[in-house]
Amino acid sequence: MSYRLAELAERIGGEVRGDLDRQVDGIRGLETAGPTDLSFLANPRYRKTAIASRAGALLVAPATVDLVHDLLVVPDPYLALAELLDIFYPQPSQMVGVHSTAIIGEGAVVDGNARIGPYSVVGERSRLAADVEIHAHVVVGRDCEIGSGTVLFPGVVIYDGVKIGERCRLHSGVVLGSDGFGYAQHEGAHVKLTHVGSVVVEDDVELGANTTVDRALLDETRIGAGSKVDNLVQIGHNVELGRGCLLVSQSGISGSTRLGNGVVVAGQSGLSGHLKLGDGVQVAAKSAVFKSVEAGKKVAGIPATDASSWLRQQAMVARLVELGRRIAILERSEETGKQEKEP
Amino acid sequence: MSYRLAELAERIGGEVRGDLDRQVDGIRGLETAGPTDLSFLANPRYRKTAIASRAGALLVAPATVDLVHDLLVVPDPYLALAELLDIFYPQPSQMVGVHSTAIIGEGAVVDGNARIGPYSVVGERSRLAADVEIHAHVVVGRDCEIGSGTVLFPGVVIYDGVKIGERCRLHSGVVLGSDGFGYAQHEGAHVKLTHVGSVVVEDDVELGANTTVDRALLDETRIGAGSKVDNLVQIGHNVELGRGCLLVSQSGISGSTRLGNGVVVAGQSGLSGHLKLGDGVQVAAKSAVFKSVEAGKKVAGIPATDASSWLRQQAMVARLVELGRRIAILERSEETGKQEKEP
Amino acid sequence: MSYRLAELAERIGGEVRGDLDRQVDGIRGLETAGPTDLSFLANPRYRKTAIASRAGALLVAPATVDLVHDLLVVPDPYLALAELLDIFYPQPSQMVGVHSTAIIGEGAVVDGNARIGPYSVVGERSRLAADVEIHAHVVVGRDCEIGSGTVLFPGVVIYDGVKIGERCRLHSGVVLGSDGFGYAQHEGAHVKLTHVGSVVVEDDVELGANTTVDRALLDETRIGAGSKVDNLVQIGHNVELGRGCLLVSQSGISGSTRLGNGVVVAGQSGLSGHLKLGDGVQVAAKSAVFKSVEAGKKVAGIPATDASSWLRQQAMVARLVELGRRIAILERSEETGKQEKEP
Repeated sequence: MSYRLAELAERIGGEVRGDLDRQVDGIRGLETAGPTDLSFLANPRYRKTAIASRAGALLVAPATVDLVHDLLVVPDPYLALAELLDIFYPQPSQMVGVHSTAIIGEGAVVDGNARIGPYSVVGERSRLAADVEIHAHVVVGRDCEIGSGTVLFPGVVIYDGVKIGERCRLHSGVVLGSDGFGYAQHEGAHVKLTHVGSVVVEDDVELGANTTVDRALLDETRIGAGSKVDNLVQIGHNVELGRGCLLVSQSGISGSTRLGNGVVVAGQSGLSGHLKLGDGVQVAAKSAVFKSVEAGKKVAGIPATDASSWLRQQAMVARLVELGRRIAILERSEETGKQEKEP
Repeated sequence: MSYRLAELAERIGGEVRGDLDRQVDGIRGLETAGPTDLSFLANPRYRKTAIASRAGALLVAPATVDLVHDLLVVPDPYLALAELLDIFYPQPSQMVGVHSTAIIGEGAVVDGNARIGPYSVVGERSRLAADVEIHAHVVVGRDCEIGSGTVLFPGVVIYDGVKIGERCRLHSGVVLGSDGFGYAQHEGAHVKLTHVGSVVVEDDVELGANTTVDRALLDETRIGAGSKVDNLVQIGHNVELGRGCLLVSQSGISGSTRLGNGVVVAGQSGLSGHLKLGDGVQVAAKSAVFKSVEAGKKVAGIPATDASSWLRQQAMVARLVELGRRIAILERSEETGKQEKEP
Repeated sequence: MSYRLAELAERIGGEVRGDLDRQVDGIRGLETAGPTDLSFLANPRYRKTAIASRAGALLVAPATVDLVHDLLVVPDPYLALAELLDIFYPQPSQMVGVHSTAIIGEGAVVDGNARIGPYSVVGERSRLAADVEIHAHVVVGRDCEIGSGTVLFPGVVIYDGVKIGERCRLHSGVVLGSDGFGYAQHEGAHVKLTHVGSVVVEDDVELGANTTVDRALLDETRIGAGSKVDNLVQIGHNVELGRGCLLVSQSGISGSTRLGNGVVVAGQSGLSGHLKLGDGVQVAAKSAVFKSVEAGKKVAGIPATDASSWLRQQAMVARLVELGRRIAILERSEETGKQEKEP
């Protein structure tokens, strides 16, 4: 399928600089795009690459209209790209109906529009709404609920009694509802606490490959609507995420910690248990948060502290060898001063 | 099922303060419990929440008997909770018999009481003892042994020749016996060492979702009895864990490192290879242990050092900007002193 | 199967010190080897263990010929071990033919020598070359290509359109081609960018258990030939690895970062996005790399800096309490000096 730039501009609300009739039939990166491709410049560090690009047209912000390519100018190129990808590459469902090898437990209710792939297993009394897509080799436990339009990729495992909202995407290897890590100590042994709570995933959540979410000890572990979680993230028992949180790859949230809305936890960061992070808190990559954080704060470091303080501290750490030398100089000078006074 | 407080007190060895006849029919968290629920206060930071709780009764320690609720007083509320959860929520097996779609390899011996879920595959000559529960979509390799009462949740993969003890719980996505990360270097290429060792998991071990344990190059990787491992933990080839160790989420143990009994490795910490950690060592969260640690020590930091030294160091790091300023003041004063001496 | 030391020496190009006719029938670790086992000493820290070993013979480097055992002396014992393991423990394929329960999609082309295990699913139009081994419970999407001799262990998931080269080994739980973590922001919501790129894994790559590789937004995510990746590693969208890279367990590479040839990223380290690491860069364990790194450099720390600078800094951090004390002494002395001058 090929599109004229003018047509695309109209559909996504942009403006063309250059040839309105320029035809593009795909979207590619700056380095691989050819004359019939649209590419994009959203991150200024790729400006040189954009200048050298052989792309037929570029999707750019108003600030970068000085490029010589035919341009599709939009307020936010990355946001416009999201729209254009869906225009160029519509993603039809991969599946049709319920595969003959799927096993549906007694009392389970599967909507007529739900699709279930080969060898998937749905437990007793679970309910799958319209347009749910269960890929191959998915296991859904008993008494689960999955909202309409939600997609479970191959190999996802949902333990009993988990509730998932609408339009969620759970990637392969996601495990929802495994036991939380909770043991009482008794005469040197770790005594298991049977976890009888659940996991609730609200609408429009995406969970990355091999991410794990433990069931609550009591009550529920909850992922707020619109939150996006990357690969290999750990979410402990009784954790609560607000709406629109972002958890980047390999981050981990320990048990009973509560995040407000719009909290961002960057890659490989960890939060200890029983904390509260207010709305909009941002945790820098590779941090360890041991204390609660007020709304709107940015924190960094191990242990995490105010992000700008951390930056200043790290600048000083980088100068520590020099500081040590200056102290030694002061001491020698002081020593000389003393000796001079002594007769 | 509903219980009188007096009855519960008798069963778990506690004492009632308040209404002996108070009936409770479930256990919930402090914030969600209602008049027919029992809740609990084990962590003092939730005292205010406990005071405000609408729970019908609270499980508490002797130190917190001043609460106005009907109380079930026990020496260790968290330990008592473990017992009560099993009384209120007995967990019957989810499965019956061997599912018709399960594939059992030639020469495999499956006890008559073992249960095997849909689409699971058990390799040739493997032996499954009584009351083993293999959920759906589990793959057990050839020549494996699984002890009585052990549960493998959906999607667990056990490579060939792995031995698992009794009463273990392996959560979804656990991989036991994949090759260790070992290569010889030859003219710039990484030459694979075929790993011919095994993995041995002793009795009463729990392994969290998506945790991986590599097989030994030679001999065996071993997880000691009663050890509990959280989600997304990496245990390298030839590692040995003693009895009752705790490895918290996203921690990692590199090849050939040996842990004594009761070692605790907190979340996101890593141990490099070929180390020895003595009995009872505690590694703080987000630490990197590059040297062996003597029994009973607590370590923290990157690189890990004595935990209390690390705390002092971090306190100093937080004051580095101030220290820098004080050095600068001393230098100016010193400079002034010199100038005063000069005529 | 039993071998004479002289025979082994001839096959791997070594030299015997001691009894040429010594027979060994297996390879074991120093502590477990008995009189009919060969063991090895490659890491000097195990010298004492070697001296005490009951092994029938030891594989050693020329520098350690003073041991009293019968010795098989080679230039590089670890490399020779790789060869000997394949002699003692040849690994025949575990599978024969295509299992009757495997589902092969329409238009898929499976070579007559490929082997496909129980319950595996191969999508439409995918092509599997000679000697490919697909274990049980593997899901290969549509339009994939898998090169000859490549092995996919149980539970691997390959999304649509992924290309894998020859002689690769993908361990259980590996997910290739899940969506990258990319969202545009719009009025507080995270708007998904449909990822239409792919993943390309070149020849001779090994990927450890539960490692995840995201598909590119556009174009491709690429793992260079001969690269070896450990367990639980995250490789983000549009990342490119050169040839022969090593990524150790639980490390993570953020989107669009490019590694040259022979880059080593040690355990639990993370690289932020859009960086370039030149050929041969080495990243120490538990580091966080926020800036591009020139070829040949070694970096360490959070944020990562030159590795030797980091070592010096850490040595100073360990002395910070002492430095603080020395500053306080200078201040008191300075104060005394001032007071002495005042009449």
